[in-house]
Amino acid sequence: MTGPGHDGAGAERPAAIGLDRLSLNQATVKHLGLKEAVALCVRHDIPAIGLWRDRVAETGLAEAAAAVRAAGLQVSSLCRGGFFTQADPDGRRAARADNLAAIAEAAELGTDTLVLVCGGLVPGQRDLGLARRVVADAIGELVPEAQRLGVRLGIEALHPMFCADRCVISSLGEAVDLALRFPADAVGVVVDTYHIWWDARLADQIARAGRRIVSYQVCDWVLPLPQDTLLGRGHVGDGVIDFAPITAGVTAAGYDGYVEVEIFNAEVWDAPPDRTAATVRERFAAVSGRR
Amino acid sequence: MTGPGHDGAGAERPAAIGLDRLSLNQATVKHLGLKEAVALCVRHDIPAIGLWRDRVAETGLAEAAAAVRAAGLQVSSLCRGGFFTQADPDGRRAARADNLAAIAEAAELGTDTLVLVCGGLVPGQRDLGLARRVVADAIGELVPEAQRLGVRLGIEALHPMFCADRCVISSLGEAVDLALRFPADAVGVVVDTYHIWWDARLADQIARAGRRIVSYQVCDWVLPLPQDTLLGRGHVGDGVIDFAPITAGVTAAGYDGYVEVEIFNAEVWDAPPDRTAATVRERFAAVSGRR
Repeated sequence: MTGPGHDGAGAERPAAIGLDRLSLNQATVKHLGLKEAVALCVRHDIPAIGLWRDRVAETGLAEAAAAVRAAGLQVSSLCRGGFFTQADPDGRRAARADNLAAIAEAAELGTDTLVLVCGGLVPGQRDLGLARRVVADAIGELVPEAQRLGVRLGIEALHPMFCADRCVISSLGEAVDLALRFPADAVGVVVDTYHIWWDARLADQIARAGRRIVSYQVCDWVLPLPQDTLLGRGHVGDGVIDFAPITAGVTAAGYDGYVEVEIFNAEVWDAPPDRTAATVRERFAAVSGRR
Repeated sequence: MTGPGHDGAGAERPAAIGLDRLSLNQATVKHLGLKEAVALCVRHDIPAIGLWRDRVAETGLAEAAAAVRAAGLQVSSLCRGGFFTQADPDGRRAARADNLAAIAEAAELGTDTLVLVCGGLVPGQRDLGLARRVVADAIGELVPEAQRLGVRLGIEALHPMFCADRCVISSLGEAVDLALRFPADAVGVVVDTYHIWWDARLADQIARAGRRIVSYQVCDWVLPLPQDTLLGRGHVGDGVIDFAPITAGVTAAGYDGYVEVEIFNAEVWDAPPDRTAATVRERFAAVSGRR
């Protein structure tokens, strides 16, 4: 057997994921505008991009969609909807309206995946169960519009260190539990290595997620954690995460979409974007264990 | 019904845990030596103390045991054994010897509980499964001595943000899975609110832990996280944790031992110890939801 995935180490290893499945999440090059990020992907032969709503808005939705199409890029996901756990009915209505807008934007941009960061505790409340019920109800309200526009809502479990302030969905299993309450064409889960690598149940939960996996995002867990714990992510290979078994599980579960590299890290943001893109490409082999 | 736990809110509420079950973990007053911490507990009518091995060693084991006994204090636990995931056989032998010594110290100090912080990834290895097997094997090796001396090893799940560098046991469920592989008189679990409050499976896992719970430690999760994420803990009530349902679960599971207040926080450490002890007592009512 020969082929792009063959390294002679044994036929039982799954085929490597090639660079044709690489997507650059634009948060990795945070200081670039949307058109600059698109041009960067083109220069580095990266076939897909994960977009952020603030950068889309800055460019204008129609112009952003046109720029991506003209460049021949695929949009692997739109980041992000969510933040459902508002304190009062007005806040929740506003969150709903904002999420409906995000679904429409995703459709216009040509991606079928809207990533959800669901929100932390309801302000002033310590009740985790309440927050989780608010999230479930809010997702349910979005399902008809998601189905109508062919956009899947990707519930992303965030690392438990963000449970209080950003996302009360703290493990992949919990995200899968939640997703399974809704139709598969409307709600799925995001597997992000940074947030879930530590979980002893991870392999089981990835298998259980199966075709509900709508996005696979990768970056590494780097120690020590920085002052702003949001920014402790690193290039693949700079930290402790063993990507190969996670990727093998995601692949075995049936996921065949793009693999988004999404790195929140002040040093990476300050690096020359072309160097960042080159590093992302170089390190990508390690995602499927071919380092 | 009247009694110390009755507040008129309804007979269905479990009885409050009284101050007769309060223990001060000496890490909360980190700058005090063992005898000073003992005197502080006596001054504030705190009936038990959780000891740390470094402070015991500094005082001398026999002298520490005598000081605690003379003060009429109970020792709710000894912190800590563990750190099993050494890179080589020599390191693992040294860890074993150190843990055997810790078991003997616990027995000499008159506590039946040795808290284990199991260790992070094996140095140079990204393999979480390997680290977890090393931990399980190491605990198994300690069981006969723990049984001989009547000391239970308390597996503490640490928050997943410490998975890489301090403890690969990252959820209570995982700690229970591990404990159940060993005899109940030798191995149990520690429930520490700071590390596990976020877990959607928490209530189920506390119930499943049942009589395996050998220690209940409390402190609050305070945002923002500080630069040193080890130190982001707060007095009960200063953060987001809803203690009452956790305490109710631990009580329903059959735990009737001391409740240790253990706070790692640079500001708390710098505060006058008498003020800290007074705050610990004042806030304790909130542990069982009577704030």
